[in-house]
Amino acid sequence: MGNTFGHLFRVTTWGESHGGGVGAVVDGCPPRISLSNEEIQRDLDRRRPGQSRITTQRREEDRVEILSGVFEGSTLGTPILLMTRNRDTRSGDYDEVRETYRPSHADYTYQAKYGIRNWQGGGRASARETWGRVAAGAIARKILRERCGVEIVAYVQQVRDLAAEVDPSDVTRERVEANFARCPDAGVAERMIAAIDAARKDGDSLGGVVACVARNVPPGLGEPVFDKLEADLPGACSPFRPARVSKSGPGSGGCG
Amino acid sequence: MGNTFGHLFRVTTWGESHGGGVGAVVDGCPPRISLSNEEIQRDLDRRRPGQSRITTQRREEDRVEILSGVFEGSTLGTPILLMTRNRDTRSGDYDEVRETYRPSHADYTYQAKYGIRNWQGGGRASARETWGRVAAGAIARKILRERCGVEIVAYVQQVRDLAAEVDPSDVTRERVEANFARCPDAGVAERMIAAIDAARKDGDSLGGVVACVARNVPPGLGEPVFDKLEADLPGACSPFRPARVSKSGPGSGGCG
Amino acid sequence: MGNTFGHLFRVTTWGESHGGGVGAVVDGCPPRISLSNEEIQRDLDRRRPGQSRITTQRREEDRVEILSGVFEGSTLGTPILLMTRNRDTRSGDYDEVRETYRPSHADYTYQAKYGIRNWQGGGRASARETWGRVAAGAIARKILRERCGVEIVAYVQQVRDLAAEVDPSDVTRERVEANFARCPDAGVAERMIAAIDAARKDGDSLGGVVACVARNVPPGLGEPVFDKLEADLPGACSPFRPARVSKSGPGSGGCG
Amino acid sequence: MGNTFGHLFRVTTWGESHGGGVGAVVDGCPPRISLSNEEIQRDLDRRRPGQSRITTQRREEDRVEILSGVFEGSTLGTPILLMTRNRDTRSGDYDEVRETYRPSHADYTYQAKYGIRNWQGGGRASARETWGRVAAGAIARKILRERCGVEIVAYVQQVRDLAAEVDPSDVTRERVEANFARCPDAGVAERMIAAIDAARKDGDSLGGVVACVARNVPPGLGEPVFDKLEADLPGACSPFRPARVSKSGPGSGGCG
Repeated sequence: MGNTFGHLFRVTTWGESHGGGVGAVVDGCPPRISLSNEEIQRDLDRRRPGQSRITTQRREEDRVEILSGVFEGSTLGTPILLMTRNRDTRSGDYDEVRETYRPSHADYTYQAKYGIRNWQGGGRASARETWGRVAAGAIARKILRERCGVEIVAYVQQVRDLAAEVDPSDVTRERVEANFARCPDAGVAERMIAAIDAARKDGDSLGGVVACVARNVPPGLGEPVFDKLEADLPGACSPFRPARVSKSGPGSGGCG
Repeated sequence: MGNTFGHLFRVTTWGESHGGGVGAVVDGCPPRISLSNEEIQRDLDRRRPGQSRITTQRREEDRVEILSGVFEGSTLGTPILLMTRNRDTRSGDYDEVRETYRPSHADYTYQAKYGIRNWQGGGRASARETWGRVAAGAIARKILRERCGVEIVAYVQQVRDLAAEVDPSDVTRERVEANFARCPDAGVAERMIAAIDAARKDGDSLGGVVACVARNVPPGLGEPVFDKLEADLPGACSPFRPARVSKSGPGSGGCG
Repeated sequence: MGNTFGHLFRVTTWGESHGGGVGAVVDGCPPRISLSNEEIQRDLDRRRPGQSRITTQRREEDRVEILSGVFEGSTLGTPILLMTRNRDTRSGDYDEVRETYRPSHADYTYQAKYGIRNWQGGGRASARETWGRVAAGAIARKILRERCGVEIVAYVQQVRDLAAEVDPSDVTRERVEANFARCPDAGVAERMIAAIDAARKDGDSLGGVVACVARNVPPGLGEPVFDKLEADLPGACSPFRPARVSKSGPGSGGCG
Repeated sequence: MGNTFGHLFRVTTWGESHGGGVGAVVDGCPPRISLSNEEIQRDLDRRRPGQSRITTQRREEDRVEILSGVFEGSTLGTPILLMTRNRDTRSGDYDEVRETYRPSHADYTYQAKYGIRNWQGGGRASARETWGRVAAGAIARKILRERCGVEIVAYVQQVRDLAAEVDPSDVTRERVEANFARCPDAGVAERMIAAIDAARKDGDSLGGVVACVARNVPPGLGEPVFDKLEADLPGACSPFRPARVSKSGPGSGGCG
């Protein structure tokens, strides 16, 4: 069950960082939603590593292919297979970790759980697995916006101790996209970029906080007892720990 | 799905605070586990309100009845129905909230979601719903201990700003039970009790932090991508926000 | 999973024939459906053994209790616990089968699967387990009728080689109830009753076929690939083997 | 849910006959099972249309690609993506059915359910969808054989009124493969082929019965109440109606 998320709209991601490819099956998508490769690609391009000097330098082309579930630009109501092939899989890069476990990676955990792992990279625990989540999420967000009027915007709230000073209720996607730290506070964004640069020069990286605002959420959404909405979100995007959930009123919620 | 938790060992709780009763169905329990009412009652007695002056004064007898799934003291592998009737349901107490929503309760949310609610009390959102979780949890903990050697102990880590100073790795259930604040730091426990007493006199209550330690957890436990263990825990006991997860080594984990 | 049926409207039955009681939890029932004990009892009374000389002579009172999910005559959208206690459980009747397996019963199967069984009776495999299905089914049928206009009528189509000659499209519940063979062909019903009487005198019983007609079923109902409607029906009422499925047109289906 | 089958070993098929491709995701496959493309291809080759003059003449290459879940010839315990591209999709062949519903096809049903369909072919209801089932089934059968000693053999038991006279308990896969009717009764096989040939010349086709024998099945397998094994089988391979289930003893079962 741990590779599938959702009940009516179900996303199953598949793929290791150094296998043949990565992707997702989206089942339960309503029929007659217009859907093009370009729309999904737009979000995948935002995700793509190597866009700027502050993210991982691995190069991925990541053109999405839709192999099923869409016909003449419209969803059919049948499973949607989204995929891309792995290309930049220089397994030689990883030879040294064949016998060792990298700190802060899931190498040991996968070995303990399955008795085997794709040592050429992070396997399923690689950030590359999120490719399928982003592709499927692009469809989910479109449905939420078109069918339910729900608007979702996420942004970098904090890097190390540098925190954006913004009012979540008026952050727009445009402001988030205005710099490559994806922080809507332009001044703090510059300092974030400088801090990341400095850490990178030291061979280090920095932790941070991502905030996500969902607007026009209908009151009463979510499960009543187990797996409530606040508990469901970590299930979708773990490692994740809700830092703060503010409810400014019915129909409005933001989690940071 | 929001009233059921688990996959192979599945707990479905049912019951409102002011309906006929509350309870749980446990499906997927292994057969041939010895199980008595007394074992489950022991945990229910720990949960019972009105045990001391610092908890809610509502009185509940809460004798567990096992209506199915156990035969001659042994589980059958069939669904186990655990129940108790509601008795102390003075609906008159709640007349004033028939038309109003209580702050910090789920009254409005249930009304918005279902268009109806049992206004005589908290309904499903009442703490009384946890009766079924405790009863089912007593069975789960027994299986984990007997079949897997996993030991679980939870305790009050903090009340308001009063934090226990204990090493999670050597907290025992005996120390937790030694005072009715259920805080293994006896000195802090006394101050917690005094603070709760003072707040209660002001018609107020205090927030806190519960720590839970699980020992001898096998490495690799949990789902690999979605609904990982850290994300699954909030689903079981929400409202819940993991404050800290420390992993002191393979086979050991504690979450506070 | 084998004690739960359905996805959005989910029925979990619990209870052995010789435990404390039997019943069901219905989760996912829409809120604001009027529901009384009497409505459910009506179907349970039709199910009750001992109503006539041709059915099993075991006596069951079987008054339904609704312990949760209904408030002031209306469903709440929360789990509905339906239960009745076992009374006529003369375990002495079964002493001889403690060490032996009864032919055509699931005694051996349960022993093989679980390594234990409630030998005092059929346990979960007893027809008594169907009490919960009938109680939950009464709710399901009401929702289908009131919300979707779907009408369902079932009847005894055949006993041994005695087959009713009726047109499924015009069988009414009144005609089915007109005799205690529950066969809408009055002439054949009499011969069925005589045949059952004769078999019973010989200490035998007779097989038969039940037909069930569902009217106003919307076209497109059911799953597209796996677990299609025709495959789902046996899952609900096994042992069951669809004898014939006729589709007389869109929006109409009957399975016998 | 209707595109997924199974609980612990879960198969989700995807793909329409005239989309980009077809395939399956297998989740829950145990790790450290040796698995090669060739093993799966062997079963896919048996499935492939156009192998003989008596099956559909559509030509499919159908080379399986495994894009994830297998590393150095071994399963990883992660989702296995099996796929092949569609090639022989001459949509021109289907222009005439753009506006009409083909008899005995699911065209109308899909249109009624989803309000859209891939009219270029059978879409999800095409026999091409079974490609993913066969590929996933090859893995399932291997695990059943290697881990549980369960042996499965299926064969054509009947075509029109021509029935094989064989003892299910000694049918071997070799005898089934000995002729392209896949009927272990060589004499009847010849007459089946002649009958199919004759029907084909008339632009017709013939119905039949497939028998499947599973040997060394452990007693107690399957769910206890709902979705029992006999009810689960139709869910996997519908349209399917169990014609006969014989149980010759513990640990042995055959269904035809």
